[in-house]
Amino acid sequence: MNRKAAALILVGFLFALPVSADEGMYPISEILKLDLRSKGLEIDPAEIFATDRSLIFAIVSVGATGSFLSADGLFITNHHVAFGAVQAASTKEKDYLRDGFLAATRSEEIQAKGMTARITESYRDVSGEVLSAVQPGMDFAVRTRAIERRTKEIVARTEKENPGKRAEVAEMFTGKTYILFIYTYLKDIRLVYVPPRSIGEFGGEEDNWMWPRHTGDFSFLRAYVAPDGSPADFAPQNVPFRPKRFLRVAARGVDEGDFVFLLGYPGRTYRHSTASYLAFEEEVRMPYIADWYAWQIDLMEKMGTEDRGVALLHAARIKGLANTMKNYRGKLKGMKRLGLVERRRQEEKGLQDFIAADEKRKAQNGTILNDMAAVYDEMRAGFDSEMVLEYLRGSVNLIGAAFTVYEASLERRKPDLEREPAYMERNFAQTKQRLLLSLRNFYEPTDKAIFKELILRASGLKPGKRIKAVDEFFAGGFGEGTIAGFLDQAYKATRMSDIQFVAGLLDKGADEIAANPDPFLDLAKAFYPAVLELREEQKARRGALDPLYARLSDLKELYLGKRFIPDANNTLRLTYGRIKGYAPADAVYYEPFTTLHGVLEKTTGREPFNTPAALFDLARVRDFGRFEQPKLKDVPVCLLYDTDTTGGNSGSPVINARGELVGVNFDRTYEATINDYAWSEEYSRSIGVDMRYVLWITQKFGRADFLLKEMGID
Amino acid sequence: MNRKAAALILVGFLFALPVSADEGMYPISEILKLDLRSKGLEIDPAEIFATDRSLIFAIVSVGATGSFLSADGLFITNHHVAFGAVQAASTKEKDYLRDGFLAATRSEEIQAKGMTARITESYRDVSGEVLSAVQPGMDFAVRTRAIERRTKEIVARTEKENPGKRAEVAEMFTGKTYILFIYTYLKDIRLVYVPPRSIGEFGGEEDNWMWPRHTGDFSFLRAYVAPDGSPADFAPQNVPFRPKRFLRVAARGVDEGDFVFLLGYPGRTYRHSTASYLAFEEEVRMPYIADWYAWQIDLMEKMGTEDRGVALLHAARIKGLANTMKNYRGKLKGMKRLGLVERRRQEEKGLQDFIAADEKRKAQNGTILNDMAAVYDEMRAGFDSEMVLEYLRGSVNLIGAAFTVYEASLERRKPDLEREPAYMERNFAQTKQRLLLSLRNFYEPTDKAIFKELILRASGLKPGKRIKAVDEFFAGGFGEGTIAGFLDQAYKATRMSDIQFVAGLLDKGADEIAANPDPFLDLAKAFYPAVLELREEQKARRGALDPLYARLSDLKELYLGKRFIPDANNTLRLTYGRIKGYAPADAVYYEPFTTLHGVLEKTTGREPFNTPAALFDLARVRDFGRFEQPKLKDVPVCLLYDTDTTGGNSGSPVINARGELVGVNFDRTYEATINDYAWSEEYSRSIGVDMRYVLWITQKFGRADFLLKEMGID
Repeated sequence: MNRKAAALILVGFLFALPVSADEGMYPISEILKLDLRSKGLEIDPAEIFATDRSLIFAIVSVGATGSFLSADGLFITNHHVAFGAVQAASTKEKDYLRDGFLAATRSEEIQAKGMTARITESYRDVSGEVLSAVQPGMDFAVRTRAIERRTKEIVARTEKENPGKRAEVAEMFTGKTYILFIYTYLKDIRLVYVPPRSIGEFGGEEDNWMWPRHTGDFSFLRAYVAPDGSPADFAPQNVPFRPKRFLRVAARGVDEGDFVFLLGYPGRTYRHSTASYLAFEEEVRMPYIADWYAWQIDLMEKMGTEDRGVALLHAARIKGLANTMKNYRGKLKGMKRLGLVERRRQEEKGLQDFIAADEKRKAQNGTILNDMAAVYDEMRAGFDSEMVLEYLRGSVNLIGAAFTVYEASLERRKPDLEREPAYMERNFAQTKQRLLLSLRNFYEPTDKAIFKELILRASGLKPGKRIKAVDEFFAGGFGEGTIAGFLDQAYKATRMSDIQFVAGLLDKGADEIAANPDPFLDLAKAFYPAVLELREEQKARRGALDPLYARLSDLKELYLGKRFIPDANNTLRLTYGRIKGYAPADAVYYEPFTTLHGVLEKTTGREPFNTPAALFDLARVRDFGRFEQPKLKDVPVCLLYDTDTTGGNSGSPVINARGELVGVNFDRTYEATINDYAWSEEYSRSIGVDMRYVLWITQKFGRADFLLKEMGID
Repeated sequence: MNRKAAALILVGFLFALPVSADEGMYPISEILKLDLRSKGLEIDPAEIFATDRSLIFAIVSVGATGSFLSADGLFITNHHVAFGAVQAASTKEKDYLRDGFLAATRSEEIQAKGMTARITESYRDVSGEVLSAVQPGMDFAVRTRAIERRTKEIVARTEKENPGKRAEVAEMFTGKTYILFIYTYLKDIRLVYVPPRSIGEFGGEEDNWMWPRHTGDFSFLRAYVAPDGSPADFAPQNVPFRPKRFLRVAARGVDEGDFVFLLGYPGRTYRHSTASYLAFEEEVRMPYIADWYAWQIDLMEKMGTEDRGVALLHAARIKGLANTMKNYRGKLKGMKRLGLVERRRQEEKGLQDFIAADEKRKAQNGTILNDMAAVYDEMRAGFDSEMVLEYLRGSVNLIGAAFTVYEASLERRKPDLEREPAYMERNFAQTKQRLLLSLRNFYEPTDKAIFKELILRASGLKPGKRIKAVDEFFAGGFGEGTIAGFLDQAYKATRMSDIQFVAGLLDKGADEIAANPDPFLDLAKAFYPAVLELREEQKARRGALDPLYARLSDLKELYLGKRFIPDANNTLRLTYGRIKGYAPADAVYYEPFTTLHGVLEKTTGREPFNTPAALFDLARVRDFGRFEQPKLKDVPVCLLYDTDTTGGNSGSPVINARGELVGVNFDRTYEATINDYAWSEEYSRSIGVDMRYVLWITQKFGRADFLLKEMGID
């Protein structure tokens, strides 16, 4: 290709994917540098971040995001964020998931098991301290371990200095910038109002990642603290937490074209990754995982066709797998449509020319992109084996349980700071809880079938890529009969599906574990060296990549003459944009608001498109209260805006120019799954539930007027 | 329900389905009564119909519709209309379906086998003559036969008086109005230019009945006549037909909001049917057939999974079944969405009140709606048996063949006018051709499986509804083994799959047939009495309904104080409207134009979304010629308008206010499948290919500049 052609293509790409001022998940440290007033913000940006009563103090991290709406710790997040807690609180007799939940008084508010809430209190750059742990000439894996160790030390010290607080060191720019965040950490969270699933999850998997959307994906919860105001575990005598700041709900909603911004905890993005990484994702990782998840979903659906009980056992797991599968397929489509890998390659070609143009730069960094690509080539080469090992633990319930039991017996004997994070004091309770929850939905035929499939995949690995531990364990060969024989015997003899038994073993030492012989524990022990070896490889790859990414980042800043925003990493971010529709395909335009009429129109009476009859009754008499949108002549249900979000932004408040709440973010469009790699002005749209629908449901359907009053709406 | 509530609901329905001036498939006799100038027509309406050079003389019926575009008999219709002829002209070496076809000179134009073209020359009301055949007190079936006989006599007489012409008597208002049409009937049709299937059928079954659409669904053909100008069968010495009128192609295309009208031959609509009939359709007939077709498609797809050859054998049949199935599902959805049955019931309630308000009317017509409902109740009761009998002949190839052979041997001995229409001299050639074509795609395992399924359905019929002939034939019982044994033996012994053999039998008398014993001929003979009985019942139902519909029509005109337009019945109609998008669902808007960019965007490289590379090349250099639409900055591909169409309107010219061709109609939207029962201002949209795309493809891709020249475009 000659240079002129290349330049032309580049122009084409820029046209296809315009870079806009609206791209960006800005760390709070950047907020005051943005000229938000010129974008449409009407309040002083310092009100968002910079005073003691900043809006950021109204934002909580609950895995995803939530925001306080009253002085008494009332907060709102998504129905799907509270889903697990609602499920845990439900019984056959009181099915809050199906029927919804309303605490008529504070004493009726019930514990949201497994939920905690963090509030970002402060941050400090600790890059120097973290990176000073690295010595020149360190082996790659050793380098990674040194940074991990230093990070743990900083966290331990900070938490000691700030009792009751939680500390985290977040890597902002890979291998380069590390920020210490201090969080208020609330552990007593309770359910206040949860709509029935037929509202909160309306559309289900079918509408997931889709617009137009008609989901009332919200729940109200409340944070509690000890009577002295300090964070505490659930206890009846606890009192509502009093946040430094809460959001006011906009009285008159929001219109098309309005400026909005979101605060939240987006999870992971890969905007600064190399073309070689993007190609690995597109060609290797995402297709493999999408197919593997599809295989599991297919299996679980077949298992459930005959027996409703078995289907229910698999429901949550299918939901999770399907969510990721659809997301990956959306991303794959988006990567192709935007020609993302090729576009990144062209950018890197420019950078490579820039490096080559200066002798010193060339000497120091001439091979940097190739060096990084070499690491990803290694990942490609080992990928199939790695996946088998990963999913033996991750997808086979009983192997996962045995592994955790076995590893805990080893790790829990080490000094706290030397343990793998899952086994450190501050994390072990959660590790335990997750494992035991996973066993609740154990179903032997499914578990066996997944196990068998993975062993068959292991048996098909090429020489040089084989997993020695698996080959040795199945020394008798991978014949149909041999594997079936082993599986029948193992599932018959094991006690790893017994939740009580597993819970009992989780605090035991190696000797006590050894006293309980179990085929799955034998297997965990046999496979463990392979897992350690893989973990070492991963740390080595990280150790190799981290400093390269740090240098690449510097070079790119120099080349483009501009500063970057770090990738999302589960820390508090701001993103802004406007209420805006889009054209997902030729001749199709999506409006930015859906309506109650649309909910009724989609209703088929069968899950996930069933709707409580009361909604039809309210619509028939047009009992829209103050929540009717005059132009639509209807209650707006969901809304669309072009902010830059990703997973973790679920539950983020959608805030208008006056700093008032107008919606609750809960998803993004199919075309916007690509956000993890690139933001697109044309396609990147996020989806929120309109506060008018939230309040209308809460008041007219839920009859919880007192909550509106608590939020200052009368 | 009290009266006020009922009134409210009625208002609701009217709101949901506004009655608009744009509804209507107007017979040509109505054209001058419409005030088309006030709607936007710029030419004198008499130019459409009333002079010797009217636009209607540019319109041909080719099963569907076509329109002449040159003085030399060049006409345009849909690719899917010419499909069968293109397939018949194709060989393995010259695959015109796959590669397209272009005759560089007239001598290269090849025969479009099976195609004929009719031009409406004149019409005359013969209601009096037809209805004078009916004598008071006639038995219902006898009444039907009398009308059929009288109609045949009129046709025979008219064709004798007009040599070379074709006559048809069309029933306009059921049981009330009969019009005699005289047609010029052209039998030598040839292929001129056909784009490849990847353009002409782009989107295939997946996009069928859908918008946005990107199909270049057009083909150019030419009609030929004998050197003396008289219609003639295909012969090398024939010369191009010179139509009285041809359409000019609009030089500058069409815009959103423009007035357009269509002329064409819409097939069947049911706008005047009773609520009892609509309910029968919604509850009984359409779901049964949609499911039965789905069952067959599923079977054929399974048969084809292992063997590409078998898949190809089933392709055309699956296409046909899927087309109807999707249409029915669309209709069922639309009937529910518009609450059509309930709406019609409310209308009839009003009519019933009107009848009851006058003593004489009440005495004469008080039970008319109930009487009609009783006939449909009878149809419901016998439906399952009827379907089994119908599809034994219709879906099992070899039974169909045996039946036609057997029935022909009986019918062909009768005087021509006494035969069932399929066996009359004027129709028998076509009957033969259709049967032999159906045997081309015979595949024994599929045929056997369908046969077996229908026998099992017959075996499950309730007492009183059973088919005696089937029970007697399978006197040995319906056990798995018995049926399988019969089928194995029958398919082994039969010669009904031998096209030559069947062709040979088709002209033979009963004795000669009897000399060729065949298990399927035995079966045809055994089932024949049941078929005759069913036919008699159908004629009796018609005889009962026809005069009731005639009276109902009079009553409705009296009640509503307005005249109606007769339902579509394969005769020439005009419909008008505007280029217009629509909102198919909450928050979704469909624009009325698609673009070349959209074709490329939809292209996956796999059927039915493959696109010739040349189109990408032309798009890359923006070689749009004069066909670029300035606002879209692209070539428009398909267009949308709110005229009132149904099946048979395929190929209809879309004509602008100046009487010029702007598009070729080929489909309607999923929401508009409901057109057969009701037209909706919100949802009824028809789909055409934009003439700019037709011409762009023909010139830039097909390189057939000479055709543009022939159409007067230079």
